[in-house]
Amino acid sequence: MKQEHLEQIDAAVKALEDRANGEGIDRIYFVACGGSQAFFMPVQYMFDRELGVPTAIYNSNEFNYGTPKAFGPKSVVITCSHSGTTPETVAAAQKATDAGALSIAFTNVADSPLWKAATRPMHYDHGKDADFAEKNTSVLYTFVFKALKVLAPEQSARWDNGLDAIVSIAPKRDAAIELYRERAEKFATANKRQKTIYTMASGVNYGEAYSTANCWFMEMQWVSSNPIHSGEYFHGPFEITDYDVPFIIIVSNGATRQLDERALAFAEKFSDDLLVIDQRDFDYTGIDEANREYLAPVYSAAVVRTFVEKLAHDRGHSLDVRRYMWQMQY
Amino acid sequence: MKQEHLEQIDAAVKALEDRANGEGIDRIYFVACGGSQAFFMPVQYMFDRELGVPTAIYNSNEFNYGTPKAFGPKSVVITCSHSGTTPETVAAAQKATDAGALSIAFTNVADSPLWKAATRPMHYDHGKDADFAEKNTSVLYTFVFKALKVLAPEQSARWDNGLDAIVSIAPKRDAAIELYRERAEKFATANKRQKTIYTMASGVNYGEAYSTANCWFMEMQWVSSNPIHSGEYFHGPFEITDYDVPFIIIVSNGATRQLDERALAFAEKFSDDLLVIDQRDFDYTGIDEANREYLAPVYSAAVVRTFVEKLAHDRGHSLDVRRYMWQMQY
Repeated sequence: MKQEHLEQIDAAVKALEDRANGEGIDRIYFVACGGSQAFFMPVQYMFDRELGVPTAIYNSNEFNYGTPKAFGPKSVVITCSHSGTTPETVAAAQKATDAGALSIAFTNVADSPLWKAATRPMHYDHGKDADFAEKNTSVLYTFVFKALKVLAPEQSARWDNGLDAIVSIAPKRDAAIELYRERAEKFATANKRQKTIYTMASGVNYGEAYSTANCWFMEMQWVSSNPIHSGEYFHGPFEITDYDVPFIIIVSNGATRQLDERALAFAEKFSDDLLVIDQRDFDYTGIDEANREYLAPVYSAAVVRTFVEKLAHDRGHSLDVRRYMWQMQY
Repeated sequence: MKQEHLEQIDAAVKALEDRANGEGIDRIYFVACGGSQAFFMPVQYMFDRELGVPTAIYNSNEFNYGTPKAFGPKSVVITCSHSGTTPETVAAAQKATDAGALSIAFTNVADSPLWKAATRPMHYDHGKDADFAEKNTSVLYTFVFKALKVLAPEQSARWDNGLDAIVSIAPKRDAAIELYRERAEKFATANKRQKTIYTMASGVNYGEAYSTANCWFMEMQWVSSNPIHSGEYFHGPFEITDYDVPFIIIVSNGATRQLDERALAFAEKFSDDLLVIDQRDFDYTGIDEANREYLAPVYSAAVVRTFVEKLAHDRGHSLDVRRYMWQMQY
């Protein structure tokens, strides 16, 4: 990782450590919108599973207007906006700074409004030519594992293994893409005329279901969707299932696998149109058993992307087309 | 309210008070599935806005398998299952009881497995002939306002006003139904051939968007949906908007109204097919200004139900039909 990125991450972690050893940390809030909120969902899950300190995730304006009572100077607020300009996320970061909370931010644009509103901003690279090690996932997970070393030091060796895993994951992720390429592309072609494609996941993977439904499908393909939680499927949504109703189902290799397997067993019985991404299929060489659940989303996100790119191609609907976003004030 | 219901509520609140004054309460978890989870969403929002103690909401199996690290004997776990038999919710209540946490439950069936698994169960009535005062909403809100008197006693007069409001709300809710009946029924008839109808809300109302999408539409009408958070709309989902794309939008009268108004202003510009439920339209006589946000969902839920009943009629698709639920093991 670039020196610049490492220094920003280390400064944020150091600020976290100073708070933890000083006035204390009584809440960690992840605050962002859309894809950036989904980006935080797996790490909020990790914190929820590993830390005694309560964490929660909010849409930015929900946080700004429906501010939780417990928010205050002992809070840590972690924001993300790719452009660094999302007004409500900038406002949330500023609100945290003004309250004397620790205001940490991720963005692709240094010196952006978000960068200036937060006290500990971190930059990540973006684009086809960017190195995985410098992109958002790598920067976020590096921060998170380092933060866990500070906040859950009793498992320090485990978090070191997580840090090593992120450094060496890119070729294993590429292998996951190749392993699934045929299935993913076939599913895309078969479903290119569908008006609705559902997504389903649980636990650490719910964020991928959320961003696939709301960003890849609704935003970038104008295809309807609903991110269904695997544990909620049987309590309403499963009644929509039929032989020709498509679902993308991510099956965790970790704690919530039972939920996904149960949903999958039912969906397989009544739908002939599934893309099943089983996280047990991926290569975790060198990754501690206990960390595999947390790193698995890196692989499945890449598989989903392969599918989405083929879908966009077959539909002749570029992932870069928008009719409203960036086209007007709203 | 019946003596039996009052006694059960008071016993649960007393247990909460004993905990608060004794070993302390460090977490409140709402744990349920589907419609029962949605039922808790407005009150989890209320607790988040009014209490220093952290609260969170989980799907039952997400809680059972992806158990938060902080869960323990100082937790309060509040569950709900209408039948009292939802296995994963029963397991969550039992898990709470076994851990020495306070295990509170709501159900329509006394002596059900959930009833037995929890230490403080509460019963509510159900059905067309049941009195509003004895049904789930009234029992839940009575419990919640009494709980707030214990956990946020500095606003005791405000919570007393909330308790009074629940007692006198039924005729005002009926007036809300009549105020909206024509609009709601017209929207139902106009959209009876739609394969997809979206819902949108924020803050205290997100639960209504969630249950309308996943239960009323997906489960009971086999109509596709996606419960969109108003604050998330501009960060993905809004690209699906078009002149013939239907949305039900609930506009809060409270803290998050700005989010809903912003989403509505956009949706009105690009879709001709909206049902807008503005919570400022309802009668709040006798209800403190500060409580109106929290009680408004009672009115809008009734309006949505009026719409759904007309939709079901016009589609010839009974709300009682299921193809999988209750028909088989899953």
